[in-house]
Amino acid sequence: MSKVIGVIIDYLTDDYRRQIDEAAARHGYETRYYPDSRSAVGNADDCEILFGHCSQKVIASAKSLKWFCCCWAGVDRFCREELYRNPDCRLSNSSGAYGVTISEHLIMVSLMLLRRQLEYGELIRARGWDTLPGSIRSLCRCRITVLGTGDIGTQFARRAKAFQPAKIVGVRRSAKPGDPVFDELRTTAELDAVLPETDLLVMALPNTPDTANILDARRMALLPEGACVVNVGRGTAVDQDALIAALNSGHLGGAALDVVVPEPLPADHPLRDAKNLLLTPHVAGNTTLPYTRQRTIDMFLEDLENYAAGRPLLHEVDRKKGY
Amino acid sequence: MSKVIGVIIDYLTDDYRRQIDEAAARHGYETRYYPDSRSAVGNADDCEILFGHCSQKVIASAKSLKWFCCCWAGVDRFCREELYRNPDCRLSNSSGAYGVTISEHLIMVSLMLLRRQLEYGELIRARGWDTLPGSIRSLCRCRITVLGTGDIGTQFARRAKAFQPAKIVGVRRSAKPGDPVFDELRTTAELDAVLPETDLLVMALPNTPDTANILDARRMALLPEGACVVNVGRGTAVDQDALIAALNSGHLGGAALDVVVPEPLPADHPLRDAKNLLLTPHVAGNTTLPYTRQRTIDMFLEDLENYAAGRPLLHEVDRKKGY
Repeated sequence: MSKVIGVIIDYLTDDYRRQIDEAAARHGYETRYYPDSRSAVGNADDCEILFGHCSQKVIASAKSLKWFCCCWAGVDRFCREELYRNPDCRLSNSSGAYGVTISEHLIMVSLMLLRRQLEYGELIRARGWDTLPGSIRSLCRCRITVLGTGDIGTQFARRAKAFQPAKIVGVRRSAKPGDPVFDELRTTAELDAVLPETDLLVMALPNTPDTANILDARRMALLPEGACVVNVGRGTAVDQDALIAALNSGHLGGAALDVVVPEPLPADHPLRDAKNLLLTPHVAGNTTLPYTRQRTIDMFLEDLENYAAGRPLLHEVDRKKGY
Repeated sequence: MSKVIGVIIDYLTDDYRRQIDEAAARHGYETRYYPDSRSAVGNADDCEILFGHCSQKVIASAKSLKWFCCCWAGVDRFCREELYRNPDCRLSNSSGAYGVTISEHLIMVSLMLLRRQLEYGELIRARGWDTLPGSIRSLCRCRITVLGTGDIGTQFARRAKAFQPAKIVGVRRSAKPGDPVFDELRTTAELDAVLPETDLLVMALPNTPDTANILDARRMALLPEGACVVNVGRGTAVDQDALIAALNSGHLGGAALDVVVPEPLPADHPLRDAKNLLLTPHVAGNTTLPYTRQRTIDMFLEDLENYAAGRPLLHEVDRKKGY
C-alpha cells in the first residue's frame, strides 16, 4: 500500500498542485486532493499526512494520521489531545506565512485610529468636506508596545520602525532573546509596568490559557487616556465588555479588532456600536494575498523534506503550549 | 520706528508665542499677533515680515512687506507677482514640515486601497462578517512610482521601503540627484515608460503649469489594469473626469484623493460616487499634528536667523517656478 498525503487547500491552483505532487513523488507519496473538509471526512483513513484547511472532524477521522500540517497560524482548535487517534501524531502550523499581510493590516488600522479615519470616513459619507476639530496623531514619536513578539509582532515592529516611533517595546512570555528591532524586551510579568507608557498597544498572541483575557478592565485602566488598542491573533485575549466601556467613556482613544468572540460577530452585538472601534471580519491574515498562499505551500514542502528525512519539523507546534 | 513681524497662526500657543517673541527681540523686531487674516487686512502696513496663515488680501495690503513666510507647503496662490507691492519681497514656505504627516496618510490610504478597506468598511457598516470574494493586495512586491521626489515623496518612500516593495521609482522634473531610498530615478519626460510598470502611483506635486493635468486619460491608460493612484499635493494634477471613467470601468483598481478641484468638493460632485475612490477632505497635511505645528515654527525661526544675517533663506520659493 502506497503512502498517502491528503490535501485540502481553499486556494489550490494547478501550479501549487504540481509543486506538491513533485515533492510527494520524490518521497514515495501519492497525493489525494479533497475539494473541502466535508468530502474528506471518512475518506482519509489511509492518509499518513494531511495538509491544509482541514476541519477538526477530518483530523478526528483520519486513522493513519502521523502529521497534520495546518495552513493557518492559529491552531488552538487542533491542540486537544483527544482529537488524535495516534497520540504521537505531529502538528505543524503556518506561523510565518502571515507576518507580511498581518503586519500591513496592523500598520493600516493603527494609522486609521491615530488619524481619525473612521470619523473622516463618516464625514465624506455624509458628503461633507471639513477638517474635524481637535487633533490627529502620528506613529512618529508614538510609544508602541507589542504584546507577542513572534513572526507577526516582529514584522509589524520592522515596519513601524520606519515611522520613527519614540520606542517599540516587545512583551513576551519568557525572557528569551528577541529581535533587535525591539528597543526593549519585557516579559508578560512586567506588562503592568509597561502599559502606563504605551500610546499604542498591538496584540498578536496565540490563544492559550495564559493569554485569555490578558487585556482586562484593570489593565485597560493602566493605559494612559487616549491610548489605542489593536488586536489580531485571537479575540479571547481582550475582555470585550471592558473594552466597550473604556471606549465609550473616552478612556481609550480607539481600538481595532480583527478577532472577536464569537465569530461571526452577531449583527446586534454591542461591539458594533462601541465608540471609535474599527472592526474587520478576521481578514488581517487573509490568505488571498498571493505571497501568503505561496508561503503556506513553501512551508509545507520544507517540512515535508524534514519529515521524510526524520528531522525535526521547522514549524512544529507543542500541543501542550498551544503554539 | 521699530521693525515689525506680523504673525497669523491658527494654532498659536503661549509657548509658540514665547519662542517667536524671543527670536524677534534678538534681532530688534517687535511682534504683532493677529487672530486671523480679516483683522490683519489694512492693519499690517508697517510689517516688514509676515509669518503664518495669511490670506492673499493680507499680503496685497502689506505696504512694507519684505518677506512672507507661509505656514503651508503649497504656495501656488502666493506666486503671482502682482500680489506684491514690493517686487523684491521674498517668499518662503513650510515644505519639510508636512513630510511626516503626509507620508503617514499616503501609507494608510495605499494599504486601504490594496486591502479593500473601503469594501470591508461597508460590509461591517451593514453589520456583516465575511471574507470578500477575490484577492487583497500588498505593498510587499508592489511596484511603486512616486511622482514628486521632494520632502513628501521621499518621506513616503522611506516608510514604504520597510514593506519590501518590488521597487520604488522616483520621478521628478529635472535629472538632479535624488535620495538613495529610490531604487531608480527618472525624469517627467520618461514618465510614460514608467507607468506600464507601476502598481501604485503616488503623486506629491506642487501646483505649477507643468503639473496641471499631468495624469490625464492617456497616461491612466498606460497604467496596468488594477493599478491604484494616490494624490496629495494639488487636485489640478489629475484629470478628474478621466479618473472617474477609469475607476468605474475597472481599469484602475482604486484611487485616493486628498486634494480635488474644487475644494470644498460639492455634495453632488460626481467624484463622490466613483467606484473604489477614497476621498479625504484635504487633511493629509493636517497641521493639527503637534510635530507639524512645531516644525513650521522651527522653520520660520531658522530662516529668521538667515534673514537677519543677510543669508539666503533655506525655504525660499522661486515665484516663477512656483515651489
